[in-house]
Amino acid sequence: MTRPVSAPHDAVEVIAAKRDRGELSDSQIDWVLDAYTRGAVADEQMSALAMAILLNGMTRREVSRWTAAMIASGERMDFSSLSRPTADKHSTGGVGDKVTLPLAPLVAACGVAVPQLSGRGLGHTGGTLDKLESVPGWRADLSNAQMLAQLEDVGAVICAAGTGLAPADRKLYALRDVTGTVEAIPLIASSIMSKKIAEGTGALVLDVKVGSGAFMKDVDRARELAQTMVALGTDAGVRTVALLTDMSTPLGRTAGNGLEVGESVDVLAGGGPDDVVELTLALAREMLQAAGAGDVDPADRLRDGSAMDVWRRMIAAQGGDPDAPLPRSRETHVVRAVRSGVLTRLDAMAVGLAAWRLGAGRARKEDPVQAAAGVVMHAKPGDEVTRGQDLLTLHTDEPERFDRALAALEGGVEVGDEPAPRSALVIDRVAG
Amino acid sequence: MTRPVSAPHDAVEVIAAKRDRGELSDSQIDWVLDAYTRGAVADEQMSALAMAILLNGMTRREVSRWTAAMIASGERMDFSSLSRPTADKHSTGGVGDKVTLPLAPLVAACGVAVPQLSGRGLGHTGGTLDKLESVPGWRADLSNAQMLAQLEDVGAVICAAGTGLAPADRKLYALRDVTGTVEAIPLIASSIMSKKIAEGTGALVLDVKVGSGAFMKDVDRARELAQTMVALGTDAGVRTVALLTDMSTPLGRTAGNGLEVGESVDVLAGGGPDDVVELTLALAREMLQAAGAGDVDPADRLRDGSAMDVWRRMIAAQGGDPDAPLPRSRETHVVRAVRSGVLTRLDAMAVGLAAWRLGAGRARKEDPVQAAAGVVMHAKPGDEVTRGQDLLTLHTDEPERFDRALAALEGGVEVGDEPAPRSALVIDRVAG
Repeated sequence: MTRPVSAPHDAVEVIAAKRDRGELSDSQIDWVLDAYTRGAVADEQMSALAMAILLNGMTRREVSRWTAAMIASGERMDFSSLSRPTADKHSTGGVGDKVTLPLAPLVAACGVAVPQLSGRGLGHTGGTLDKLESVPGWRADLSNAQMLAQLEDVGAVICAAGTGLAPADRKLYALRDVTGTVEAIPLIASSIMSKKIAEGTGALVLDVKVGSGAFMKDVDRARELAQTMVALGTDAGVRTVALLTDMSTPLGRTAGNGLEVGESVDVLAGGGPDDVVELTLALAREMLQAAGAGDVDPADRLRDGSAMDVWRRMIAAQGGDPDAPLPRSRETHVVRAVRSGVLTRLDAMAVGLAAWRLGAGRARKEDPVQAAAGVVMHAKPGDEVTRGQDLLTLHTDEPERFDRALAALEGGVEVGDEPAPRSALVIDRVAG
Repeated sequence: MTRPVSAPHDAVEVIAAKRDRGELSDSQIDWVLDAYTRGAVADEQMSALAMAILLNGMTRREVSRWTAAMIASGERMDFSSLSRPTADKHSTGGVGDKVTLPLAPLVAACGVAVPQLSGRGLGHTGGTLDKLESVPGWRADLSNAQMLAQLEDVGAVICAAGTGLAPADRKLYALRDVTGTVEAIPLIASSIMSKKIAEGTGALVLDVKVGSGAFMKDVDRARELAQTMVALGTDAGVRTVALLTDMSTPLGRTAGNGLEVGESVDVLAGGGPDDVVELTLALAREMLQAAGAGDVDPADRLRDGSAMDVWRRMIAAQGGDPDAPLPRSRETHVVRAVRSGVLTRLDAMAVGLAAWRLGAGRARKEDPVQAAAGVVMHAKPGDEVTRGQDLLTLHTDEPERFDRALAALEGGVEVGDEPAPRSALVIDRVAG
């Protein structure tokens, strides 16, 4: 009775429909997201709807429409004027996951442009922008025109997503974060995909992490998320593939901003840890294939130095000095093996929490991060170790942080007699 | 990591526990309701929790603790200084349900004090205070001391609940109203019972309405609500009984504020419609029995005029003139039978909506109501009617309201050949 004549719906009607296990109509979805963005649907109404979606689910049609409505809340970018195809990658976040850093210049070196709009870290997983900001002079903020020019000129850009893309998602994500509604697969999938579709990439490869250090601890939920996102991308005309990859132990041998940049440069120089190289190449091959350049072997571009050339030009184009030494922490603390044997466990969540507590991550959006803080891993699961040998080096500028970092590692590092069976790095592949 | 050292819980933890179908601890419940009342838990967090409670339910222990925590958010009244026992009645709301008006003075005339804290109407059901405010001079607002003095002196008081009782419920109810979370049985039960327990009554009889004009359309949900409320009262030491009563057709022959006062006075004078008399006596007997005065027959007190005496003193004690004529509407419109036969249907929701649209009810808390607006029913289901005979008289001060009131009655009034089977007025009784 109190609905304004001009409004086709009201918030309680939409909430009640999903609460009662109904399917929301296109008109209800379009209205509620537009009204929420305008402030005509209140936060307390949207959070009740988000909880009902979390508990009662959404059909593929509902999630597609929800994603389209979030895209419609803001601007869309357009890379159709570029002289080469585009491909992007999104990772759901892991510990030591620096793969974007070598991957973007590598794919660009193969002839496919990479427009990588990234974020900052929150919690135990690092953010790509935080990592690159440890390179002296490097700036994350580019205008759309600067981004387009760098894509044409260099072929790769990693920069901050502007506030114009999917503003409904920005508002909804902040709300979900404080209302226990982050964990809804339709909302996770539409949040990620609305930004990637609005960004205008032609092809997209998703790295969905599974394991203790990942948002998805369980392979079935990870597969459901991957399938939902691949369907959303496909419905929106973006060639989309997902890999499920292991995040039970950190990727590579470093977790921390500057430390991960150093390891990424090692990979671009043709070295680096096997797992980082393997995942970088697997994702590069998927991106190239989705962009119609599947005949190029990215391993060649690592070997011949052309990926490193793109990296140096990409860093320099955003004000960074690729030759400047990376920052070093003021303090270090070494964790040594208490017995000889095989490293059976190096838990991703434990290492991620330790790096966070050392100053590499933030608890609130406005917190600063330390460029040099983090964890260096001298052994990985399956490696033989000797009593007294260095296992981890903890880095921070504030030595009072060591105690809480060591507490986070409690139970996360184990030396035993027999190596635990290792799971494959790439667990599964989901295509449209 | 962001929890203040002094807080034992945080909102996301409590929401996530219920979201994941867990049982909330006493400490979580106490904390979340206290923090919500203080503003430390935000509306958008509480609405997400309310939706999780609606969809995942609560155990008896959780609802009891939730109710206790709402009571603890405010003051408690104490009638232990009175010279007689106390009993109260609560109705979940129906159309034409004026029973509180004759019931309170009747029970008082039997020697049991009735401290009736009431509310105003919202939507299609009327509010007891709105009805009494049609008596010239009558005031709803009393201090606690005035209430206690009137209870001792007159034995019955019907007044507005102060803002000091269960303020958490007041805040939560307003939130549920706009977030599609009214319909949760644990939240409905704890909302009603927190106020009744805080009010300090020794005995309580619940009139849980079932049918088209009631909040609960379905007898199983109504029974579940009754059982939950009886358990809450019993757990809190209040002798509590519930009757499930029929609300498929309006109670009595009037729906509207002043119209219902007139009918109530008829009942107190020994007349009035059979169904109103039957329900008033049934509830009075339950209240007297629960208060330990089950040997008194309330029918005697209607016959001998002593209930009417208490009514007159109760009205006068709150500034009202029991001899003043009740307000009459400026306009009337008569609905006549289109054929001869038996009245087979007089739908409670249709009549309630019509009375609302005529001006007897409000759509928003701040709206005024008309004292004389409403519906008079000249026939009830089962009555024989003749073509052209008056069925309903609609009353309002604003004749432009007739059209929408008549639209509300569409399909709600039917004359047929055979009387429909009538359900009993009292459907079931639920005791501790």
